[in-house]
Amino acid sequence: MTDHTPHLCPQFHAAVELIGRRWTGAVIRMLLERRMRYSDLKAAVPEISDRMLSERLKELEAEGIVVRIVTPDTPVKVEYELTEKGRALEEPLRVLADWASAWTPAP
Amino acid sequence: MTDHTPHLCPQFHAAVELIGRRWTGAVIRMLLERRMRYSDLKAAVPEISDRMLSERLKELEAEGIVVRIVTPDTPVKVEYELTEKGRALEEPLRVLADWASAWTPAP
Repeated sequence: MTDHTPHLCPQFHAAVELIGRRWTGAVIRMLLERRMRYSDLKAAVPEISDRMLSERLKELEAEGIVVRIVTPDTPVKVEYELTEKGRALEEPLRVLADWASAWTPAP
Repeated sequence: MTDHTPHLCPQFHAAVELIGRRWTGAVIRMLLERRMRYSDLKAAVPEISDRMLSERLKELEAEGIVVRIVTPDTPVKVEYELTEKGRALEEPLRVLADWASAWTPAP
């Protein structure tokens, strides 16, 4: 080292790798729009496989970012909604989207 | 779909998965502190393997986020520095670090 060694914050590290996990950022971004059924998410992110979408939703539930809302209707209605912790990701993801639109080429 | 289908921006999607790639966020965060030699980065992020650090640096160079600066000294000095595009990630990563420190438990 030429100098002091900067310190990597483990909370930052976990957060950046969580939201960057395959499709996670996309799913959170869609849920920032509104509460969604599984089929709404599939329609909004058509490239994601069923297995991966279920896995991502389970991870986000385990992280306290998404809650599963079950309405006892016929048939039972299952929706996914961001928690307060999840909605707090709106600003980080918006600022990152601004960076992407300023610095990366449109497809 | 119950409603309109929100649109997933492909530039946002690529950006979030780029910075969330294993160790990429950590490497960028370290380079925001200062220009670094390979060995400085290894010391700052000790858990990363050599193979992965080299791979990540190459990807970041290819994305125009990092430049490799070679100083013809004895021995040759090689350093990595963020480009303007890379330095523009400071705000997104800072806002995400704020989220992590507000919402995730300290280790």
